[in-house]
Amino acid sequence: MLRNIAMTIEYCGTAYCGWQIQDSDPTVQAEVERALSELCGEKISVTGCSRTDSGVHARNFVLNFKTASTIPPDRFPQAVNSFLPGDIAAKSAAEVPDGFHARFDAKFKTYRYYFYIAPFPDAMLWKRAWHVKLPSIDTLGEEKQSVMLRSMKSAASCFIGTHDFSSFRAEGSNVRSTVRTVTDAYVFIPAVNDDTRHPLLCFEVRGNGFLYNMVRIMAGTLMDVYKNKIGPEDIAGIIDARDRTKAGMTAPPDGLYLYKVEY
Amino acid sequence: MLRNIAMTIEYCGTAYCGWQIQDSDPTVQAEVERALSELCGEKISVTGCSRTDSGVHARNFVLNFKTASTIPPDRFPQAVNSFLPGDIAAKSAAEVPDGFHARFDAKFKTYRYYFYIAPFPDAMLWKRAWHVKLPSIDTLGEEKQSVMLRSMKSAASCFIGTHDFSSFRAEGSNVRSTVRTVTDAYVFIPAVNDDTRHPLLCFEVRGNGFLYNMVRIMAGTLMDVYKNKIGPEDIAGIIDARDRTKAGMTAPPDGLYLYKVEY
Repeated sequence: MLRNIAMTIEYCGTAYCGWQIQDSDPTVQAEVERALSELCGEKISVTGCSRTDSGVHARNFVLNFKTASTIPPDRFPQAVNSFLPGDIAAKSAAEVPDGFHARFDAKFKTYRYYFYIAPFPDAMLWKRAWHVKLPSIDTLGEEKQSVMLRSMKSAASCFIGTHDFSSFRAEGSNVRSTVRTVTDAYVFIPAVNDDTRHPLLCFEVRGNGFLYNMVRIMAGTLMDVYKNKIGPEDIAGIIDARDRTKAGMTAPPDGLYLYKVEY
Repeated sequence: MLRNIAMTIEYCGTAYCGWQIQDSDPTVQAEVERALSELCGEKISVTGCSRTDSGVHARNFVLNFKTASTIPPDRFPQAVNSFLPGDIAAKSAAEVPDGFHARFDAKFKTYRYYFYIAPFPDAMLWKRAWHVKLPSIDTLGEEKQSVMLRSMKSAASCFIGTHDFSSFRAEGSNVRSTVRTVTDAYVFIPAVNDDTRHPLLCFEVRGNGFLYNMVRIMAGTLMDVYKNKIGPEDIAGIIDARDRTKAGMTAPPDGLYLYKVEY
């Protein structure tokens, strides 16, 4: 009888053409399947919770796989890590019911998008945040900074609810329904990790599902708010338009992290 | 009459075989010379303040070059950045006296070495800090954490002074003198940039010069203090031994940043 194992992994997506296996390109899935197959001595196929794009990162990506191996589930992470490259790490694992499916059973996903707004790029954040070449929020002065932050928070909150998110979907993608429910969406300044650097801005969004490029288009649209090209009061109209051309640019993959999956 | 321009740049060294030009390998110097030559329409050679190794980063690397160009010095950074890849950025520039030499005139250099001590790697810090697979300092409990931090600070302080640093020099390297003066050396916890992550530890060291791999061997030795393999009271003896085998391992380049150069 095969056991069904669910595993949580973290990865830096910079070196990979996304999660999903492709012929010859390096993918996270290919690395994980190779590592698990070597560890278990059998061909392992994994099911991922999501298909992250090329260059997108994951904090807590959930996958599941069937195995005849008798390795205790809590030993899997450490064991498989010795077969994985350093930019992919298994963090926890547990046996789950046979029917558990990492993608179909995901109820909510949370993404974080990191903006690094500063006149110059930061060596530590290269390919790990979207560097936007503009005066940093910490140089705007206290009043302007608080107005700007309030404005971005207010814009983000307009995403909350059950909407047709066609305006925030990459063209050419096909899905049965473009209606999704966003339960939380906000913008905050995580603590600065070095006193001489400018702060990051983080957009966090939680929902029951996301259309192709949806979070990156939301992030691109929030950057238009930062630039005062649009105001928070414009977001509702952009959603209502159901027209991709009304929303902002697709923000680069560098700043996007799959943060949490809830079942 | 050629002008002498000093320029400060920041770079992420992950994609480069160090600063110094080599035949066909990608180097930071080659990129900067190509970009400046394209901008100025003449062959530009630059002198760097230091030869950073493959994979080492720089926050404020100083270089100088002679040019016939009439571009105002304060316009150089923005102008050259449009010819540079995104992981190298010019930040400031100024005209300097003809005799100024970025390497020979450097009086003090400051390096930072970042440790990320945690059971699992962090997607944001991959290749930007040394991931040491150990319980993080924030999980040790308050008392043990403060003892550990005091111990590392105390060990670092033993580097301060004018010493023969042969124990902290990569074997095979040749220099006239192995005596260097370290003016400051300490360990601190920079603020955590995300409340769910473990903190970084940072070793900062300032001196009038550094032997080949000196900071990385110091960092490797401080990690032995963290691991309780040695105590802070052992550092003086390691220095006195003038024997590379007495010090710790050479820490990987990922965590090393040239932080500041003083003239």
